[in-house]
Amino acid sequence: MKTGIPVEQAHQIVMAEASPLPSEIVDASAALGRVLAEPVDSGRTLPPADCSAMDGYAVRGEELAGPGPHLLPVVYEVAAGGSGERPLAPGEAARIFTGAPVPPGADTVVRQEDTEEEGDRVGILIEPRRGENVRLAGEDVEAGDTVLARGVRIGAPEIGMLASLGRTLVHVHRRPRVAVVSGGNELVEPDRDASGGRIVSSNAYSLSAQCTLAGAEPTNLGIARDTPEDLERVFRAGLSSDLIVSSAGVSVGDHDHVRPVLEKLGCELRFWGVLMKPGYPLAFGRIGAAGPWVFGLPGNPVSAMVTFEQFVRPMLLRMAGFGACYRPVLEATLAERLTKKPGRLHFVRVHLKREGREWSATSTGTQSSGVLRSMTLAQGLLVFPAEATELAAGARISVQVLDEELFRETEPCV
Amino acid sequence: MKTGIPVEQAHQIVMAEASPLPSEIVDASAALGRVLAEPVDSGRTLPPADCSAMDGYAVRGEELAGPGPHLLPVVYEVAAGGSGERPLAPGEAARIFTGAPVPPGADTVVRQEDTEEEGDRVGILIEPRRGENVRLAGEDVEAGDTVLARGVRIGAPEIGMLASLGRTLVHVHRRPRVAVVSGGNELVEPDRDASGGRIVSSNAYSLSAQCTLAGAEPTNLGIARDTPEDLERVFRAGLSSDLIVSSAGVSVGDHDHVRPVLEKLGCELRFWGVLMKPGYPLAFGRIGAAGPWVFGLPGNPVSAMVTFEQFVRPMLLRMAGFGACYRPVLEATLAERLTKKPGRLHFVRVHLKREGREWSATSTGTQSSGVLRSMTLAQGLLVFPAEATELAAGARISVQVLDEELFRETEPCV
Repeated sequence: MKTGIPVEQAHQIVMAEASPLPSEIVDASAALGRVLAEPVDSGRTLPPADCSAMDGYAVRGEELAGPGPHLLPVVYEVAAGGSGERPLAPGEAARIFTGAPVPPGADTVVRQEDTEEEGDRVGILIEPRRGENVRLAGEDVEAGDTVLARGVRIGAPEIGMLASLGRTLVHVHRRPRVAVVSGGNELVEPDRDASGGRIVSSNAYSLSAQCTLAGAEPTNLGIARDTPEDLERVFRAGLSSDLIVSSAGVSVGDHDHVRPVLEKLGCELRFWGVLMKPGYPLAFGRIGAAGPWVFGLPGNPVSAMVTFEQFVRPMLLRMAGFGACYRPVLEATLAERLTKKPGRLHFVRVHLKREGREWSATSTGTQSSGVLRSMTLAQGLLVFPAEATELAAGARISVQVLDEELFRETEPCV
Repeated sequence: MKTGIPVEQAHQIVMAEASPLPSEIVDASAALGRVLAEPVDSGRTLPPADCSAMDGYAVRGEELAGPGPHLLPVVYEVAAGGSGERPLAPGEAARIFTGAPVPPGADTVVRQEDTEEEGDRVGILIEPRRGENVRLAGEDVEAGDTVLARGVRIGAPEIGMLASLGRTLVHVHRRPRVAVVSGGNELVEPDRDASGGRIVSSNAYSLSAQCTLAGAEPTNLGIARDTPEDLERVFRAGLSSDLIVSSAGVSVGDHDHVRPVLEKLGCELRFWGVLMKPGYPLAFGRIGAAGPWVFGLPGNPVSAMVTFEQFVRPMLLRMAGFGACYRPVLEATLAERLTKKPGRLHFVRVHLKREGREWSATSTGTQSSGVLRSMTLAQGLLVFPAEATELAAGARISVQVLDEELFRETEPCV
């Protein structure tokens, strides 16, 4: 087991172990936001036949050269879902509606707005381009095409495409199941009396929310008392999950029974301690050769969230099949001078503000790892490199963007 | 009713009618992603007392000036959730664990790593800064503070904060309920036989997904046949929703019974027809003075999705309480020349590619409004202004970003 390793190395160790989970079959409507675990081939041609893109008149385009209006008899009408009674003969027109198949003989549709009805005849007021307003069979999809590739994230267009293909069931990567474990004699659930030195087990709730936002399915297994027996009970309850996130604290304290319990359960720790702040006392390992991965996160609320962001979130996204597993990174201008001791990389909670095309970053104030409120105020985490001791006001810095809606606009661009 | 209006004007008309829905009380865990409809005040001080941020020894900081090691008797220990037996007397130390209250008399915690145990005494190896490793009562939250403002979107830190405050129930803006209506004799559901000119009702599925992604709750009311009676039946089923999205087609065709049906139900149309492509035949109105808003979207798959993006999505986000209701907009470099006729604003489906700090945009190919596949390939919609007829290769253009994960990174920034 490695101890006190740099953030880069911890990333490598974690992500080397992360791979997409096997697939499951879900209803297409439940697949929104999931990642395809199969290529989707089309068994259909879409549209299945040449059809009208407009309400109007189907005509033989070649007959309408030169200045109009051309007056043609309307011999029948074709609605969507219907069909032409017979091939269109020279000199004839057919009333046609959006989505209806273009009758044999016709090759062009003139929009209703460009015509004039005259009894049972129609006056064509324009010289149409041949093939105009006709959607050709296979324009969207040819039978046999691979329409959606494996690894595609299913958004709204993919949902519509699956429906068009008649695919109501689809193979997607399974979502990681995460057991969330808390430990400590002082902890109580949020609905209980928190007086007299008791502390609300808030980490289980923020970490569960982080799991959900990373596409995982959290189960909150509750609070273990700080005894080997109770910790073992709770960790055993998490053995059927893909990953266990514990904020039971993996630290140096006498009261910390987590490590021996994990060892008893066959957990091999890959590392303990990462050169970062907040969040040094972070442990990562696996129970057995095929059991759940285990992250022992620090107990302070901010440390727990920041270490989750750095390591657990990308691993969960990779397990769910995503390619891009890391938060957006902005280059921003630092609005104030920051200093620290060398040795650990600091993730500084910052406000982000857009000024034209540039972003500026300002610390949210106290960087104490107990101040959860600073996380509610932060849009991003500034990366203050391990060996650096000073970032000058005006410096160009990298910021991980935590606030997914930061880039949304308050005004329409049109 | 206005007809053939510019996109800007249609935006103004729609958004002038959009306001946040009333609040509802939900479980805090169900509030993730919702918008707070109340300010959250704290009834608690957090932490409730001065407490240790580390495992170590509580001491009187003033006694440890000058070079150590200082050897102090360890008179008792305080675990998290516990309390000191008595005030710490001069010259004494107490073993203390993370989260435990600092005993009266002590003001500083020395980390375990900076000490040496010697029987029932501890050697302090450093000269601590007074107050070090102590989290002061109220450092995070003072009782009476407004911790979260009305209008805040509830993310993971807010979930943790609500838990810390013992708030397991919270007022959030209600999510808009959307009735999704399709119409057409040719339409069948995706699990039915789609041969012989029948077309799958895919719009109901892509539009429902778009609703979900905009924080709304869609209900798919199914397909109405193209008769006044059946359309009325389906629209009536949507009267209890906040908004009806119809892709039954509001066009000029004889077969279009939607408008008379809407009028019969008391719908006043605010506009019909927007100078855009795809998507001209778009209608917007309201049934009665307090009934649902109605969007009559065009029937072509791409037109339905693009008009939803421009008008329905921002309205739904505003109804759900969001401030930033529009997609991110990128300035990008156009990779190829585009041309069009003047008069309508075009939303051109484009690929987006990042090159260093710059983005380039390329058309996804055919811009036919029937080619749904182009939407699965597009990361954004390029804005080709109404009166422009040409955009040169290399031009700087604005692109609405449809792909929410476009900004995510494939590699860690550390």
